[in-house]
Amino acid sequence: MKKRIAVLGCGRIGSLIARRLSGYRDCEVRVYDSDPAALEKVRGHESLIAETADLADPAGITTLAKGCDLVVGALPSRIGYRAMEAVIESGRSLVDISFLPEDPSDLDRKARETGSTVVYDIGVAPGLSHLLAGRGASMMDTVDTVQIRVGGLPLKPRPPFNYAACYAPSDVLEEYTRPVHIVENGELVVREALSHLETVDLPGVDGPLEAFLTDGLRSLNRTVKAREMWEKTLRWPGHAEQIRLLERAGFLSEEPIRLKGNVITPREATAAMLFPQWELKEGETEFTVMRVEVSGEKKGKQALHRWDLIDFTDRERGETSMARMTGLPCVYTARAVIEGGVSAPGVHPPESFANDGRFFEGLLDFLRGEGVSLEETTL
Amino acid sequence: MKKRIAVLGCGRIGSLIARRLSGYRDCEVRVYDSDPAALEKVRGHESLIAETADLADPAGITTLAKGCDLVVGALPSRIGYRAMEAVIESGRSLVDISFLPEDPSDLDRKARETGSTVVYDIGVAPGLSHLLAGRGASMMDTVDTVQIRVGGLPLKPRPPFNYAACYAPSDVLEEYTRPVHIVENGELVVREALSHLETVDLPGVDGPLEAFLTDGLRSLNRTVKAREMWEKTLRWPGHAEQIRLLERAGFLSEEPIRLKGNVITPREATAAMLFPQWELKEGETEFTVMRVEVSGEKKGKQALHRWDLIDFTDRERGETSMARMTGLPCVYTARAVIEGGVSAPGVHPPESFANDGRFFEGLLDFLRGEGVSLEETTL
Repeated sequence: MKKRIAVLGCGRIGSLIARRLSGYRDCEVRVYDSDPAALEKVRGHESLIAETADLADPAGITTLAKGCDLVVGALPSRIGYRAMEAVIESGRSLVDISFLPEDPSDLDRKARETGSTVVYDIGVAPGLSHLLAGRGASMMDTVDTVQIRVGGLPLKPRPPFNYAACYAPSDVLEEYTRPVHIVENGELVVREALSHLETVDLPGVDGPLEAFLTDGLRSLNRTVKAREMWEKTLRWPGHAEQIRLLERAGFLSEEPIRLKGNVITPREATAAMLFPQWELKEGETEFTVMRVEVSGEKKGKQALHRWDLIDFTDRERGETSMARMTGLPCVYTARAVIEGGVSAPGVHPPESFANDGRFFEGLLDFLRGEGVSLEETTL
Repeated sequence: MKKRIAVLGCGRIGSLIARRLSGYRDCEVRVYDSDPAALEKVRGHESLIAETADLADPAGITTLAKGCDLVVGALPSRIGYRAMEAVIESGRSLVDISFLPEDPSDLDRKARETGSTVVYDIGVAPGLSHLLAGRGASMMDTVDTVQIRVGGLPLKPRPPFNYAACYAPSDVLEEYTRPVHIVENGELVVREALSHLETVDLPGVDGPLEAFLTDGLRSLNRTVKAREMWEKTLRWPGHAEQIRLLERAGFLSEEPIRLKGNVITPREATAAMLFPQWELKEGETEFTVMRVEVSGEKKGKQALHRWDLIDFTDRERGETSMARMTGLPCVYTARAVIEGGVSAPGVHPPESFANDGRFFEGLLDFLRGEGVSLEETTL
């Protein structure tokens, strides 16, 4: 009998996940969205069933989940947590990339009770970043530093921001203003976004990039002990300075102002103005680049593990690299759950599987098979 | 019998002009505004009559002007030209600082017919700037360069724009985007605003300023012949670069965008966001600084005339320097018309009086008497 998978959310990433999973003969995949227009993205994929459903209704989701073997969550952040609770309620498994503002580990006990296996934040960053950081840390006797640098960028920098976004400018601006949690001298501290600016050369990238702090460690702050640990966002040089000007000018403020009789926040106005500037143009290539580096001591010697990833827009399939890199680790993990490779009840961040060599190497092989460049260096 | 003067517009500058003119015992001054609230600015000045009037109604202005000896125009740009036409219709004289987008010299013939004497653009720049440029040019046999640098600035630069405006940010942004007409190699050419950036040290200013092209020559492009002639706006360093970023980012565009169901232009949104940033704070001192330099040949020798002006907020009177420097040349010229020192029918820009030594020296003495620092250098 075929395994039944429900994909919640048919956005750019949910639709990619649904299409890929529907390619496996042992699966029957249904994708749900509240918006019928969103379902157009999977039209013509015959092995895939697309249906409208109210994904903000927890009771409905519990019922829907009960009819499946596995649920995949690719929902807007604001409704993701309630959907996760609803799936756990059903006792079914969930693989999720909804990037929740809440802490999913709060649902761990409940998941153990219902026998639900939940893997969350399993995109690229958070996701692969966390798995690599956890893998690096597990190879050390003591961990000194964990450094994650990651970004989604247009291939050619377009002035003045040298940036194009694969998602709404409002989300990017949120990332640029949210306080950043990092580890310094073994302590969790809060720093400003866009700070700790540096320039870095990465393999496969035509020119130096800049890197600055953003709040991306999430579960790692709890699961990995290091003297120093941070995540930085990568952009073409000049971007941070220009965002900082907007910030200093009050253009990212959330203090309401009056504009033609409307009350709005400067950040809303700025996001609306940036939208046409940051939109990825038809035919424009973007790429995802990530370096995860873990240093420490191993059998009394200094050691360093480094992974370098780079991936580009897939023209043939019409998939952005950002959608690929967020969706593919989730596809792989969904397969691992279906095949019984991941089965422990509870709510798990990606780094929980860092010691699972079969899962880890399997994911890296899967990504390489999909055309992702992934290099490992040990020093 | 007292001379009757009507001041049209009771904004910051109109109210200053009305108050000053009402201090002369031979005058009876009435100030008009469409907005009763605007008239509050002159409350308590017993020798001054404040009345509401529809200043966008030309017929009403003609009637009103007929009952006066002199009209002073201090109106919003968009209604200034029709008011000027209406005063000329009445045959009365007009001294105007309304900064019209139209060319007032088109009304010259009409003014000669009705016997109306009109002096326009008689603020600081345009205004005193033009008079000094014309004076310098009249002292040369051939003029090589005419250079005007002028700005209104906060005493202490406030990051990130290092600027505070005495008028609406929308007007400042207009000035930063309007194409600039200058003279290069004896030809009138059009250049971009904010270009030709330079750094300049000026007497009385605590630190270097930056100067960049803005469109301010207006009548000078017609009345003075030079090899090179331009006006630049003065700001604290860094301002132009930050405005340019906004411009390159599309934040000054007039292409409509949607924002929360409203249709607005990015420039409107930007002006609304800059308003609280650029507002002059309670107790904040601003100043006006101007250098006008004319070089050329005089009796076969190279010569240069330079005027340096600096003026600060008048705390005692509660007047900004920008209002003082725009209003005081207009007050002086109104007195000159009343006293018969200016009487030729027609429409005249300030530089028309450059050869009139009595008017010219009288204005400089008047400004110095009001506390304006004005230095002349001849090389």
